[in-house]
Amino acid sequence: MVELRVGLLGLGTIGTGVARILIEQKELISRRLGKRVTLVAAADRDLTRDRGLDFTGVRLCDDANAIVTADDIDLVVELIGGYEPARTFVAAALASGKHVVTANKALIAKHGEELFPLAAEKGLQIGFEAAVGGGIPCMKALREGLAANAIDSVYGILNGTCNFILTKMENEGANYADVLKEAQALGYAEADPTFDVEGIDTAQKLSILAAMAFGSKIRFEEVFTEGISRITAADIQAAHEMGYRIKLLGIAKPHGANGQVDAVEMRVHPTLVSLSSQMAQVSDSYNAVQISGDFVEHTMYFGRGAGERPTASAVVADIMDITSGFPGGITHLAPPMGFVESSRREMPTMPMADALCEYYIRLMVQDQPGVIAAVTSILADHRISLEALIQKERHASHNVPIVMLTHETTEGNMQAAISRITALDAVQEDALILRKESAVV
Amino acid sequence: MVELRVGLLGLGTIGTGVARILIEQKELISRRLGKRVTLVAAADRDLTRDRGLDFTGVRLCDDANAIVTADDIDLVVELIGGYEPARTFVAAALASGKHVVTANKALIAKHGEELFPLAAEKGLQIGFEAAVGGGIPCMKALREGLAANAIDSVYGILNGTCNFILTKMENEGANYADVLKEAQALGYAEADPTFDVEGIDTAQKLSILAAMAFGSKIRFEEVFTEGISRITAADIQAAHEMGYRIKLLGIAKPHGANGQVDAVEMRVHPTLVSLSSQMAQVSDSYNAVQISGDFVEHTMYFGRGAGERPTASAVVADIMDITSGFPGGITHLAPPMGFVESSRREMPTMPMADALCEYYIRLMVQDQPGVIAAVTSILADHRISLEALIQKERHASHNVPIVMLTHETTEGNMQAAISRITALDAVQEDALILRKESAVV
Repeated sequence: MVELRVGLLGLGTIGTGVARILIEQKELISRRLGKRVTLVAAADRDLTRDRGLDFTGVRLCDDANAIVTADDIDLVVELIGGYEPARTFVAAALASGKHVVTANKALIAKHGEELFPLAAEKGLQIGFEAAVGGGIPCMKALREGLAANAIDSVYGILNGTCNFILTKMENEGANYADVLKEAQALGYAEADPTFDVEGIDTAQKLSILAAMAFGSKIRFEEVFTEGISRITAADIQAAHEMGYRIKLLGIAKPHGANGQVDAVEMRVHPTLVSLSSQMAQVSDSYNAVQISGDFVEHTMYFGRGAGERPTASAVVADIMDITSGFPGGITHLAPPMGFVESSRREMPTMPMADALCEYYIRLMVQDQPGVIAAVTSILADHRISLEALIQKERHASHNVPIVMLTHETTEGNMQAAISRITALDAVQEDALILRKESAVV
Repeated sequence: MVELRVGLLGLGTIGTGVARILIEQKELISRRLGKRVTLVAAADRDLTRDRGLDFTGVRLCDDANAIVTADDIDLVVELIGGYEPARTFVAAALASGKHVVTANKALIAKHGEELFPLAAEKGLQIGFEAAVGGGIPCMKALREGLAANAIDSVYGILNGTCNFILTKMENEGANYADVLKEAQALGYAEADPTFDVEGIDTAQKLSILAAMAFGSKIRFEEVFTEGISRITAADIQAAHEMGYRIKLLGIAKPHGANGQVDAVEMRVHPTLVSLSSQMAQVSDSYNAVQISGDFVEHTMYFGRGAGERPTASAVVADIMDITSGFPGGITHLAPPMGFVESSRREMPTMPMADALCEYYIRLMVQDQPGVIAAVTSILADHRISLEALIQKERHASHNVPIVMLTHETTEGNMQAAISRITALDAVQEDALILRKESAVV
């Protein structure tokens, strides 16, 4: 029986999950593939901790280098996380002729464009299903399942921490700061939550999805990114009254003519989606990705975006894919980014000012005559028309919150209008603008 | 550049869609794969109809035999539908060394077990993504994306016609017969709708999903099957009041001990799912499949279950998969049913009487003292406890509808109780029993 030999870097949460599957589901995996997957070695700095697993026959060591250069390993699983030394180890594994599987979205988002050509030259595969959407096989769906399509759009709830916080804020009418504290206590949010709540994690994942969708290069640093930290319980309530729910979405769309993609729109921000949509129903720490194509129309993929077992499920799916094509490598597998390396193109990121959006605007204004007239006449100057306007009850401060929904306009035009509006004497605080997406199913 | 040459049987709706993708997306497909897919020939009895496509360079003929035996074809796409002559052509194509892709769920459900070994012997692939869930890449998700998991359950809305009818009945408070007529006028339902509305189409698809999930053989004829034709607007309304929506679901679960599957539970019936679930949100002709595994937990896949373009998207995805592994065939691809042919096992279908369900019971009873006591005491005799009971307003006939939700019991026990209940003099019509699923996300 053909055997693929695996070396594992990192025996933390996910690494332990991967080892668990490879050990406990060994027979299932062989029945499925007709080939054998064997965990040969694993490296971690801490080998004393009891992981509740029988590692008999597995070489445990504290030196990752011993794994990436070993003669008896065909595939290296990188679960160290972060940029370095993960990048060095992955490059070394490829250099020594080993396939690579990783759950490291930061690595792929930042260094993927340096690693993919290394792999392609050697006929090796890089699998990173676990890097986006956790256990959901959404990379495979996009890369293979929808391969016959030119992709029209991608919308994703890609960060479980943000979705957990937004769900809890809505269910309990609680404020952001309180829910964040609770999420931290539960281990759903980091002590420094910036990476999650400011949308950076979502932007990394979105940049990978976009490049895979459009055959472009990954441009993580160019993703327009806003987080959820300015959203209040009152915003969630106001959106709900108007028929919407607020979700942190990653959004990618191609722009061009005649089927040619000339520029890629990529943005991450809190987004109003219709209460009756599938996306609005995605609660707690669940993730979901909507992918629409010119033939398939709308599709959606839903599941756990993180966690030991779901993430390990995605890592092992990649290992099994490579085992299916083994020996033989990339010649018999769909290319890692869904397009052969030589046909992937540098494409400019569309400036955010050109993005067409509908908007939710929340203002705090003085309770005096003429204020609403002044605000709406500025919007009219900019040819921005209103879909709805709600004036809420007056605060103790005698200030009045106003919430507006607008029809479509460009981001540049909206920002110009908002600068003028916030310059009005009667406007008391910075405006909050959120965006709305009608195309979410 | 490696080239895979395709021959197409049937230029109806889906066949035209497949030809359209292969012709119009030719460049996109090559950019993705680094290999070429060429439509070489197509057969249809009617070659005069204008299909709005430029078939230059494609050999059109009215003889399917000329395609299945041609020397210059590597893969045959069967889009004739039905059992015969589809089966004969597919067997002949495999015999002459050609890969096969089909959208024909009837063929796979009934004759798959005869065709898979033929393909395996020759190292050939049979692709049938389009047979279940239309454009949704759910076969690929189950077979490859979740391959590291022992599958715990599959729940699917697999028939767009039924989902369209149920959605319209709910939205308009309309009756089944009226909505069916409308669906027929719109072309969403056949003149003879039995195949769709009585759940047979769903059962075919479910039998394929179950065998792929558990490594068992396809046993379509053993699926317990009930359709939607007895459901009334009042049932939909009553379910809604209790927090549920009625969907026609295909349900498959494994039974056994120590990770060994000893029997497979397969049933198709109208099912109450929580209004707040993802599944309840799947409306109109959309399909969705929830697949849960021991590592990945719950996942769901959503999209168009039928139609020229979505179905063609799935067919071409299969063609592209085979092209990835070409030349080389099955050795480099996941096996068609997710387990190598030699490890797939005959497994008995669990008798429906053993299925554990929660129930919705609707009775029409005479408006007289003691009737509810008689009904509920029979349920108590059978140790069936109630979650809810609603007595609705009296009809003009002086009869009263009663709706009950029960906690879990076996189907056999429920059927015994229902026989006694319907034998009561005061019970005016046959009872309707529906089943409820709490595990739907």
